[in-house]
Amino acid sequence: MTLLAPDDALLARLAERLGPRGFTTDPADMEPWLTDWRGRVHGKAAALLSPASTAQVVDIVRMAADARVAIVPQGGNSSMVAGATPSASGTALLLSLRRMRAIRSISEQDGVAVAEAGVVLSDLHDAAAAIGRRFPLSLGAKGTATIGGLVSTNAGGVQVLRFGTMRSLLLGIEAVLPDGALFDGISALRKDNRGYDLRQLFAGAEGTLGIVTAASLRLYPAAAQRAVAWIGLATPHDALALLRRLERATGDAIESFEIVPDDGLALVLRHIPGVRAPLGQPHAWHVLVEATAPEGGLDPRDALERVLGDAIESGLIEDATIAAGEGQAEALWKLRESMSEAERIDGIAAKHDVSVPVSLMPDFLRSARDEVEEAFPGARVLAFGHLGDGNVHFNVRPPLAAENAAWLAEHGAAVSMLVHDLATASGGSISAEHGIGQTKLAEFARTADPARLAALRAIKAALDPLGIMNPGKLVPLAPDAQGQ
Amino acid sequence: MTLLAPDDALLARLAERLGPRGFTTDPADMEPWLTDWRGRVHGKAAALLSPASTAQVVDIVRMAADARVAIVPQGGNSSMVAGATPSASGTALLLSLRRMRAIRSISEQDGVAVAEAGVVLSDLHDAAAAIGRRFPLSLGAKGTATIGGLVSTNAGGVQVLRFGTMRSLLLGIEAVLPDGALFDGISALRKDNRGYDLRQLFAGAEGTLGIVTAASLRLYPAAAQRAVAWIGLATPHDALALLRRLERATGDAIESFEIVPDDGLALVLRHIPGVRAPLGQPHAWHVLVEATAPEGGLDPRDALERVLGDAIESGLIEDATIAAGEGQAEALWKLRESMSEAERIDGIAAKHDVSVPVSLMPDFLRSARDEVEEAFPGARVLAFGHLGDGNVHFNVRPPLAAENAAWLAEHGAAVSMLVHDLATASGGSISAEHGIGQTKLAEFARTADPARLAALRAIKAALDPLGIMNPGKLVPLAPDAQGQ
Repeated sequence: MTLLAPDDALLARLAERLGPRGFTTDPADMEPWLTDWRGRVHGKAAALLSPASTAQVVDIVRMAADARVAIVPQGGNSSMVAGATPSASGTALLLSLRRMRAIRSISEQDGVAVAEAGVVLSDLHDAAAAIGRRFPLSLGAKGTATIGGLVSTNAGGVQVLRFGTMRSLLLGIEAVLPDGALFDGISALRKDNRGYDLRQLFAGAEGTLGIVTAASLRLYPAAAQRAVAWIGLATPHDALALLRRLERATGDAIESFEIVPDDGLALVLRHIPGVRAPLGQPHAWHVLVEATAPEGGLDPRDALERVLGDAIESGLIEDATIAAGEGQAEALWKLRESMSEAERIDGIAAKHDVSVPVSLMPDFLRSARDEVEEAFPGARVLAFGHLGDGNVHFNVRPPLAAENAAWLAEHGAAVSMLVHDLATASGGSISAEHGIGQTKLAEFARTADPARLAALRAIKAALDPLGIMNPGKLVPLAPDAQGQ
Repeated sequence: MTLLAPDDALLARLAERLGPRGFTTDPADMEPWLTDWRGRVHGKAAALLSPASTAQVVDIVRMAADARVAIVPQGGNSSMVAGATPSASGTALLLSLRRMRAIRSISEQDGVAVAEAGVVLSDLHDAAAAIGRRFPLSLGAKGTATIGGLVSTNAGGVQVLRFGTMRSLLLGIEAVLPDGALFDGISALRKDNRGYDLRQLFAGAEGTLGIVTAASLRLYPAAAQRAVAWIGLATPHDALALLRRLERATGDAIESFEIVPDDGLALVLRHIPGVRAPLGQPHAWHVLVEATAPEGGLDPRDALERVLGDAIESGLIEDATIAAGEGQAEALWKLRESMSEAERIDGIAAKHDVSVPVSLMPDFLRSARDEVEEAFPGARVLAFGHLGDGNVHFNVRPPLAAENAAWLAEHGAAVSMLVHDLATASGGSISAEHGIGQTKLAEFARTADPARLAALRAIKAALDPLGIMNPGKLVPLAPDAQGQ
């Protein structure tokens, strides 16, 4: 099945259907959306389509399917793996969902919001807060990332420990299938056992099975109380033991449990203005923990004080501080959230987003660092992130003496293969939260279980037999189909 | 693609591979497993296979695929929709997972159990309790139902409000695909964005995409405290308002919120020995609520007392009692759990397992009852169950004067069509928790959105192109394939 470029007649029909606000082929209008967020992948498109309604999306997909023209759906264009960047062929239609930004309904009583695909995450946060509720998923790109993209990438963030990834918050979905049929599963059902769960299939499908146009999302009670602490300790093993103690003592209250190594904190203190060391002495590892409780819940600060006090006494941790107010809490979070920026300022690195079973993460952190540093002498491992989810950002920085770009050009691919092999050998994933997109496609094909790949290919071919939906993303084609 | 009966050579090879404990064609051995749990559907099988290992399941599926012979997987045989009963043709192999009952690992630290498909639910409960943890999914058939069946039917139960259905508890899966390939996704990853989530696809697939051989399951901290209350009130609208108050006041503590109408309670009091009315006066509707807290959590009894006291004062509810101890708590639960039995003793009924968005359920209960009683004069609606999940068992009993079996034979199908149409019109599901199996297949085909049906058929055909996995269940065939 060969994909075709749209001819003038198709472009004219699309222009007519979408109107001037919904259709452009002007290079200047398209340009900002043709490069991925990390600035590494540049694509081209035949036109930029910006439908204002689900009905317009249906018509676009029907026309594209009839003409065998590829569609690349795009939300906030904040993919970490170039999942929303078209290929360089310039034959695809880039379909932006950004004009579909209505929150169709939101109910405090029901704890449900129905948001269109183009709703920006921070706008949903605000809408929920305005009715005394909370949409608990949050991440750095919240001012850009859209609901459609967050669903399609099964986004994570720093509250996964308690609330799960996007799929856990998904109560319903509306999507346009690759033949232009509308799948109306937007009704917010807590229980529905009518066959394969298409909601869950679309979560994380990266737009390869159709276009998510709206989602019903679960809202939680607003967090009335929160407590944030910074802890210094000796090893990730101690950190995990501390997490288990906190969980036992607080029930469901622990939302975030983030780990940062000493050299990571040092980068932040060196490069980020206005931050200061949270503890008086150095420690090999640091943990940021946040506990919250709704109105009427147990004060999370009391529980943190008790558990951390006991942990210091028993020698499990070395030191800890609990934020005295919102200002201090924000300051502690800034240390964690500045990690990526501080690292970027310090120099480039080979970055990986790996997960392993939570219980194996402390051993993985030690053994993977040892293996990488042995295989690539002088390379410096910096691993930090979501210890409670078994997910760290495992970054490998060039040796101090090396010229960064040249070293990475020579060794980067081999470093990544080693890190991915080590994660896979621990039963883990080469993409815990960023997805596959374009940039991890080859590594996914190389490391994946053949049964998993075969199942993915079969599902893709079954639902998108023409292959028009976001081609070249997520699903490694079979060897005999590589030339398509 | 026509399915074939196994020939003698295939049966001999299976017998050799599985040994005497794993293979039988003896009618007496097979007989108990050829009728569904509700005793309405009777099937036949060419042989009963009882593998002891995943490797044996792989070999069975390979042999069956080569020979185009159907396989019907079966766990505890407690399906409510005859999902594990073979057809009357007698050409299928009945594959029991009951010998695969190892709990491969269970960890208090990690909160993860890896259970083989044949592990009985109550055995998993016991194993979790023995290490101070809890597997929170529970249902009436817990002494029979197996993990493989619970995954394959995405089972619900009375704790869904807080912990979700089986798919929410699923961290990993091991399954044999229809071509005999082993999908090894058993690693318990909290985060993994490598393509379509096959774990979630298998949850609720009713064995039509392959055979689940093991699952990694999430364990929660044991509930250290629980409080159970029985409440009398005027309407389901009041009940839902009460639930929202309780949620606001207790955070995540509310686990169960079950509704029972006055005539339902009357049936229990009439037919079940040793029970007594929980409140002094009659009430139109009753609610059973259970709140729990882990070690260190807020005492759920305090919160219940406070909220229920306020609700009586404000007139939202009429009366309430909180169980003073475990004995009283069990007595209250017995009232709820005896509903189905009491109804069965009283006479047969047309039963439905419907869901609608939670917020619409109070209106649905009123309007659906009115419509059914208007269309079928004298028919008596008895609806009860999981109000907090938007899921009730909506049963329609024949008129008092009618001969039950004759009335149901004449009107049962029309009653079910009306109930299903009303649920569908409210954006709801004709199968909230029981699945589709055989007995709801026609109604599913009749009521489903064509886009949903087309997607289900495409996925089924893609992953099971020979159609050997549990044929005739869950997926309504396309009209042009009905003769297969």
